[in-house]
Amino acid sequence: MLKTITWSDDCCRLLDQTRLPEEVTYVQIDDHLQMRDAIRRLVIRGAPAIGIAAAFGAYLGVRRHLGDLGSFHQKLTEVCRILASSRPTAVNLVWALERMRRIAEREMDPESAKRALLAEARAMIDQDTDICRRIGKHGVEILRRIEHSPINVLTHCNAGGLATAEYGTALAPIYVGAEQGTKFHVWVDETRPLLQGSRITAFELRANGIPCTLICDNMAASVMASGKVDAVIVGTDRVAANGDVANKIGTLGVAILARHYRIPFLVAAPTSSIDESIASGTDIPIEQRDPAEVTDGFGRRTAPAGVDVFNPAFDVTPRDLVTAIITENGVWRPGTPKRDY
Amino acid sequence: MLKTITWSDDCCRLLDQTRLPEEVTYVQIDDHLQMRDAIRRLVIRGAPAIGIAAAFGAYLGVRRHLGDLGSFHQKLTEVCRILASSRPTAVNLVWALERMRRIAEREMDPESAKRALLAEARAMIDQDTDICRRIGKHGVEILRRIEHSPINVLTHCNAGGLATAEYGTALAPIYVGAEQGTKFHVWVDETRPLLQGSRITAFELRANGIPCTLICDNMAASVMASGKVDAVIVGTDRVAANGDVANKIGTLGVAILARHYRIPFLVAAPTSSIDESIASGTDIPIEQRDPAEVTDGFGRRTAPAGVDVFNPAFDVTPRDLVTAIITENGVWRPGTPKRDY
Repeated sequence: MLKTITWSDDCCRLLDQTRLPEEVTYVQIDDHLQMRDAIRRLVIRGAPAIGIAAAFGAYLGVRRHLGDLGSFHQKLTEVCRILASSRPTAVNLVWALERMRRIAEREMDPESAKRALLAEARAMIDQDTDICRRIGKHGVEILRRIEHSPINVLTHCNAGGLATAEYGTALAPIYVGAEQGTKFHVWVDETRPLLQGSRITAFELRANGIPCTLICDNMAASVMASGKVDAVIVGTDRVAANGDVANKIGTLGVAILARHYRIPFLVAAPTSSIDESIASGTDIPIEQRDPAEVTDGFGRRTAPAGVDVFNPAFDVTPRDLVTAIITENGVWRPGTPKRDY
Repeated sequence: MLKTITWSDDCCRLLDQTRLPEEVTYVQIDDHLQMRDAIRRLVIRGAPAIGIAAAFGAYLGVRRHLGDLGSFHQKLTEVCRILASSRPTAVNLVWALERMRRIAEREMDPESAKRALLAEARAMIDQDTDICRRIGKHGVEILRRIEHSPINVLTHCNAGGLATAEYGTALAPIYVGAEQGTKFHVWVDETRPLLQGSRITAFELRANGIPCTLICDNMAASVMASGKVDAVIVGTDRVAANGDVANKIGTLGVAILARHYRIPFLVAAPTSSIDESIASGTDIPIEQRDPAEVTDGFGRRTAPAGVDVFNPAFDVTPRDLVTAIITENGVWRPGTPKRDY
């Protein structure tokens, strides 16, 4: 599998996902400002991956800091504030930065704090991979109840290996199942406006040998109506305490279609995406992005000059439409009062 | 309003809708083969407009024919067969060609038949405009029951003036209402893959002074969830005898969302789009189009090479999801056994 983020030779590199699928290139990130911009420009995206990226960004922002422990913590706080501002919806970003600050607070001098921060960021890559594999194992148990072969799964956006350290969240059950011999076919929503589905999900599924078919987002209903979708599985940027799910714009529509056709709608998420501090989805901040993403997406303008555009990056799917949330610790059915794990 | 199709100086011209919104240019059509290609390439599109275009194509295909009445009819049959093959889903195409053949059959010699064909094609432009205005009047009566101002309407694809001779079907109630002082705001689905919403609907609404906001198709659920859609109104390429509606891919999804949020889902159609010969939507042929429309739509490739693509141009909305079909003769509620008009 392609690596989303790497650390070697004292250097952090990100796979530039804005260039996919035409080019597989890595960009070097030297400080927290470059990392913030890379997250903002979606060079790296996906809630778990931007959590890890922010962790490296925190280290990169303080690694050359000179001064006493007090000024070190001041600097780290400032660096974390800047990184946290890069994107508002994914809670993993805040979670990872909080974790980095707690790590630094344990240390008695700036140099050992720097070493601890780097070690923590690197550990997050391995932990994330482990979490994704565990999500995959829980998820494949649910998918295997479907008695078709291949099992037809529809996904929206990219919650695959390229949204995490490797493996992915939504795609993890497919990769884990495929390793064990289960056959899948994936319907890939292209995911306007930025086409993470066609550019990234179709790219990584093909690279990993999983049969898939690309559709425009508005074709999902037609495919479901024809009986060719056994389950929907998506990732998430933040789950509220009640089980409402924020994810890439368009997810809510897919969930409503799945309900209409009585197709299971599954959400795969590390527990770090569950935000216990937020009671319901109405409190999740939704990032509004540049209208040009809609009007000038891919090389030529495709809308009249001056047109008004609404371009939210995410929507919120109420928990009533969610069949199950698959975490590394087990499955949560948000319709039920208690988590099963 | 811009003219979709014109006849002057013995010459047929089509507004080239593939160049919108950047360029407003007309292409001259000299024979039926050029007309077939123009319909196929979507230079002209929209069920009523391609009916009129096919009628002109039938005349252009025979206007230079030399020979007796028998060979004239043979030629006209062949020309109509070629034009009918241009697109399979819109029934107006077949309807218009049948109408042209019946007109020709009344005449006693080829030259008078040619004159009658041209007169009939030209008459179709005026009749279509009249039909659209009548659809507008019936439609605005329904929309005015909504007590918001502005009335927020969501539409998909383009069933506006540029899909007909002028005025449109789905947009006619808005244009007629606006003339009478009713205020509207239109949510415009961009309508992947060919972006008829952003390229054509947003263009013509702005040209006609109707406030509108462009969204990606997958944002419709989010807009509806926020309570900002009072009604959905779309056109259709063919209505089955039972009221099932074939329309641009994505319409079915919008209808399901509208049902979920209890928003009226209205279809505007001339009675020539109702195909009494087809019992239900399952018998409507659905055109499959080139995968490159999905993978190379915007001037650069946005999907991995060799990816499988499913690209149906239309879907079928079951009549149970249709609140009302607005025709020039009145309103049909397909849930009810009898047409009201």
